[in-house]
Amino acid sequence: MSTDRPVKPLKVALFGSGRIGQVHARNIADHPDLELAWIADPFIDGARTLAAETGAIAVESADEVFANGDLDAVVIGSPTSTHVDLISRAMARGVAALCEKPIDLDIERALACRDAIKGNNTPLMLGFNRRFDPHFAAIQSRVAAGEIGRLEQLTIISRDPAPAPAAYIATSGGIFRDQSIHDLDMARFFVPDIIEVSATGANLFCDYIEEAGDFDSVVITLKGRDGELVTITNSRHSAFGHDQRLEAFGSEGMLSAGNVTPTTVRKYGAAGTEESDAYLPFFLERYAAAYRNELDSFAKAIRAGIPCSPGFDDGLQALALANAAEESARSGRAVRIENSVKIGQP
Amino acid sequence: MSTDRPVKPLKVALFGSGRIGQVHARNIADHPDLELAWIADPFIDGARTLAAETGAIAVESADEVFANGDLDAVVIGSPTSTHVDLISRAMARGVAALCEKPIDLDIERALACRDAIKGNNTPLMLGFNRRFDPHFAAIQSRVAAGEIGRLEQLTIISRDPAPAPAAYIATSGGIFRDQSIHDLDMARFFVPDIIEVSATGANLFCDYIEEAGDFDSVVITLKGRDGELVTITNSRHSAFGHDQRLEAFGSEGMLSAGNVTPTTVRKYGAAGTEESDAYLPFFLERYAAAYRNELDSFAKAIRAGIPCSPGFDDGLQALALANAAEESARSGRAVRIENSVKIGQP
Amino acid sequence: MSTDRPVKPLKVALFGSGRIGQVHARNIADHPDLELAWIADPFIDGARTLAAETGAIAVESADEVFANGDLDAVVIGSPTSTHVDLISRAMARGVAALCEKPIDLDIERALACRDAIKGNNTPLMLGFNRRFDPHFAAIQSRVAAGEIGRLEQLTIISRDPAPAPAAYIATSGGIFRDQSIHDLDMARFFVPDIIEVSATGANLFCDYIEEAGDFDSVVITLKGRDGELVTITNSRHSAFGHDQRLEAFGSEGMLSAGNVTPTTVRKYGAAGTEESDAYLPFFLERYAAAYRNELDSFAKAIRAGIPCSPGFDDGLQALALANAAEESARSGRAVRIENSVKIGQP
Amino acid sequence: MSTDRPVKPLKVALFGSGRIGQVHARNIADHPDLELAWIADPFIDGARTLAAETGAIAVESADEVFANGDLDAVVIGSPTSTHVDLISRAMARGVAALCEKPIDLDIERALACRDAIKGNNTPLMLGFNRRFDPHFAAIQSRVAAGEIGRLEQLTIISRDPAPAPAAYIATSGGIFRDQSIHDLDMARFFVPDIIEVSATGANLFCDYIEEAGDFDSVVITLKGRDGELVTITNSRHSAFGHDQRLEAFGSEGMLSAGNVTPTTVRKYGAAGTEESDAYLPFFLERYAAAYRNELDSFAKAIRAGIPCSPGFDDGLQALALANAAEESARSGRAVRIENSVKIGQP
Repeated sequence: MSTDRPVKPLKVALFGSGRIGQVHARNIADHPDLELAWIADPFIDGARTLAAETGAIAVESADEVFANGDLDAVVIGSPTSTHVDLISRAMARGVAALCEKPIDLDIERALACRDAIKGNNTPLMLGFNRRFDPHFAAIQSRVAAGEIGRLEQLTIISRDPAPAPAAYIATSGGIFRDQSIHDLDMARFFVPDIIEVSATGANLFCDYIEEAGDFDSVVITLKGRDGELVTITNSRHSAFGHDQRLEAFGSEGMLSAGNVTPTTVRKYGAAGTEESDAYLPFFLERYAAAYRNELDSFAKAIRAGIPCSPGFDDGLQALALANAAEESARSGRAVRIENSVKIGQP
Repeated sequence: MSTDRPVKPLKVALFGSGRIGQVHARNIADHPDLELAWIADPFIDGARTLAAETGAIAVESADEVFANGDLDAVVIGSPTSTHVDLISRAMARGVAALCEKPIDLDIERALACRDAIKGNNTPLMLGFNRRFDPHFAAIQSRVAAGEIGRLEQLTIISRDPAPAPAAYIATSGGIFRDQSIHDLDMARFFVPDIIEVSATGANLFCDYIEEAGDFDSVVITLKGRDGELVTITNSRHSAFGHDQRLEAFGSEGMLSAGNVTPTTVRKYGAAGTEESDAYLPFFLERYAAAYRNELDSFAKAIRAGIPCSPGFDDGLQALALANAAEESARSGRAVRIENSVKIGQP
Repeated sequence: MSTDRPVKPLKVALFGSGRIGQVHARNIADHPDLELAWIADPFIDGARTLAAETGAIAVESADEVFANGDLDAVVIGSPTSTHVDLISRAMARGVAALCEKPIDLDIERALACRDAIKGNNTPLMLGFNRRFDPHFAAIQSRVAAGEIGRLEQLTIISRDPAPAPAAYIATSGGIFRDQSIHDLDMARFFVPDIIEVSATGANLFCDYIEEAGDFDSVVITLKGRDGELVTITNSRHSAFGHDQRLEAFGSEGMLSAGNVTPTTVRKYGAAGTEESDAYLPFFLERYAAAYRNELDSFAKAIRAGIPCSPGFDDGLQALALANAAEESARSGRAVRIENSVKIGQP
Repeated sequence: MSTDRPVKPLKVALFGSGRIGQVHARNIADHPDLELAWIADPFIDGARTLAAETGAIAVESADEVFANGDLDAVVIGSPTSTHVDLISRAMARGVAALCEKPIDLDIERALACRDAIKGNNTPLMLGFNRRFDPHFAAIQSRVAAGEIGRLEQLTIISRDPAPAPAAYIATSGGIFRDQSIHDLDMARFFVPDIIEVSATGANLFCDYIEEAGDFDSVVITLKGRDGELVTITNSRHSAFGHDQRLEAFGSEGMLSAGNVTPTTVRKYGAAGTEESDAYLPFFLERYAAAYRNELDSFAKAIRAGIPCSPGFDDGLQALALANAAEESARSGRAVRIENSVKIGQP
């Protein structure tokens, strides 16, 4: 709307046309400063359908994407195993990248990637979208502004509506690296410097998760450098919809964010009163604004030439915490972060 | 607990052993400064049962009560038709009285009673117990303290859980004098000086109320001397329990009081979330604290030798407003209070 | 996304580039089936700025709009005095129209317009956007589905954050026709057939409103054909933001819709607990979704060849109720709708 | 009220006239089936003041209490170090006992007491009053009734308003045995069979607690026999009052209990909306009903000749869990309950 807006929007390629790719595709297409130019997916039919809807060109391979001289940025929503390679290629080409979490299920590969891109200042953002959720972001900025004094305890409750299918679970990397990793990053959004991780897992309701050697329910306790105590409660299911809540307790008060309902309507009947709507069902609805805000932050960082946040190191830290949580749940011992994974700045 | 507490509690007689009499009986028996000495009811079995439980003496007639030289106070919970006579006798004897609303269904009888007791300073309290409800009383005192600036609009919603039986309706004096009168007094608790009344009635669900020539649902609008606008919404039924709410809107903010649940428990399920308990079912539960506080205020006024509030005139004013509301609902015209009933200070 | 979507979007002209015109301009531009082709405003600078932002052509006069042979629809957001003329021209040309409320401040002009367009089946929609608010619409459809049994009482509270300027008030037609008219239409959304109107007005806080002979605070009571009782409470100000609430009470329960906060964040401190964000400040934020949904409903009705709802008659009825409310507030008498304005179907 | 009520109330002696003793004294005095006969405290002035208020006899020593042949029950609210001795003497005399938590700070002494009273069927109740809180008790019974399916996760948040004085902390036995023990028993109220305990402590705000070698903030994770995961979050302070909440998450839904406010009043202002009253300040107010209900349950168990619940073993189990939590917080290892303390039924 401003007259000095750059004449040409940034040309963006999207990797992946699955569920998360579709979210990004529509948001890129709607963003005034981004142009969705290419959608790459070996499953070319998916790429084509999405491209038709958004006015992009469907391609099969990353080569076809990186061959374009006018490519400004990539959004990586393809399978986890492709992340390190696509990040590396984008950085090598000087193309800004927004990559979905996690960097990789194998922290050694992620660390090697870090070493490879060391010193490269091309914008690189990790897709921890929940940092851009209006509710959680409001609490974080109010805490940072000192509204509740010193932060002492953080309570995160995060439950998915229903377990992913067995096939997904098998390659997910486990609940800590797949589901908890969002909450571990949320913990670091408030308490960046975590020094200790304890976790307990259980198998309460899903046979195929147990058969895969994974937990369906976990509790994680984190301790920050300044003694802050964080608890994360996760479950792979929730009868009442996507359960996403956070409470920041400080020396002078508390801020909480509850679940989101589609309307403010409440019902009063003989059986009960003040009954609210069911919660928004899952992350696509619950975090719709977060995905848009995340993309906007990415675009603005590119234009301003400033580092993206959360960045690659945030992805590494969250992965290290997920690994430590798994280790703790398996061993019954608290894991000191300094001794488990050494992570510097990329 | 104080050492200078009066050695002897005030001796109290209770008229009426019905539903409301039982509430008063137990509260008097539990009050540290009151002694329930006599319970009078021509239905002597009721009086005897209640007397046995509370340690009082059961009597049949008012004569037996007033014959006692050491009688300090009476609580009048007998039928409305007896109120004027019992008030008059108590005042004539210099015995403090707390009388249930209304004074009488016939305002002429009430006005005659006022004339008869003119100049008598014996403590006389009208049982508008809702003024002592902790929720409503808190709002009233915060409004009086200026917390929301100048009071501009007051919204009162008051619905009974279910219609009283046909026999009760027949002698109730109609919804305005029987049910709305509590809300009209509540309006006067906030806006003592009402100058205009409009009302609309409807017959929506109860045949025998319609057959009795009465309404089952009404809306009343009041205007205060300073322009304050009050709305009262009444219904003789409510599927979700006793509905008793109030909202005071002022120039600088608003204060509201919602319904009361037995616990803070909320339920979250697939069909709905944040569902609260059913509300407290009816006035005995909802206003239990109000009845205790009212009695305590009565006892303290007697001891302190100060006028009771609400007093006889408040009873008259509420009755006059109820009459005006009925007149408005029947005629379709707003009724000016100055022109309908002249009421001075008793 | 469907392959059989009409190839060419509907070409739309917008009248008015003021506050409400800007809302419509952006929504039309974002709508997949609408193309904002022209923006007309004698204040051509406003039209040009908005046209530049949305890719439309700015014109000064209605003549320039109606001269276009490929015009499909108009959205009328220009001053009230232009509505009747623009509706008439659009209907005469067979061009669909969505017109902001009210049709006119003078019901005789509105009735003449109705007569003039009688029998014309060109789509014509009245801009009572609140019918499309997700919260109120959800209640209306749940009530219509019988979820709370028979509707008995409807409570509407609607307060603007602050009075419009004196110049606006002078030509607004008064609080009933300017502000309450939205709530009168909302009442008709639930209870289409109103038979009686009572109203009371007051001047509580705004001198220039009083000097203009208008009220700053009003209460309206409506009675429906089947005895339903509706109360509307309006104020021209509210210290805590745009206050927009509704409660539908039925024989089997109640549904309510509260105000909307930007986030679910709550604060807990020494002074108070569970404190929510300030409410969305005014109608542009509060009813953003409603305006989008309204426009979408308009587009779909045009495509489907079905009558728009709310339609011209709804505009007439709301205006007749506003007039009746004013008459009642001035006269102190309930006004029967049958006797005040005769309105048939256009 | 029943005619077959026992003619003579149970004669009760109370040990301790401090803060908690005063709560019990008034509740015993008010209970229809209990008579407060003696109050014992070496600090005889305290005993005398309380006895004067409640009509009891003040004595200095336990000997004077147990010398009374008509003693039916004792309530033990004296310092923790006296509990084992008083329990033992009561059991030996066949006098029913309600003992405040904990049994002792030293689990060996508690185990020895258990051995000493083995086989004794005299009623013995442990004062975990929160089991009788109407809010938590309602959830527990609804969970037990299967309302949310199988219990999977339990979240307990429990924060005191302000740290106890340094002198109290020094002899408190530490936060786990002094504060968390209530929550550990609450966990066992829902999940009686705990198999593993992990805990993390921190020193965030109170120097003298740190100097005493104790924590001011802790998080505890428990695992039940069937995999249930319980988190307890404790703090010795809370800027917004006594913070006492619980959430039971099951396979089919969730039940939560929030904090308690004195009224339902909410405030709406320019700065924020829906602001509630401050929470009830501390346990005397928050758990007033719980203490009354606990005492009533004790009286009824005596009369019915049934075992008290919670009993001595519940006290032992909670103490063992507190010890395990401390061990875990110090060692950084999860503690298996089977291997730390062997506890059978007393």
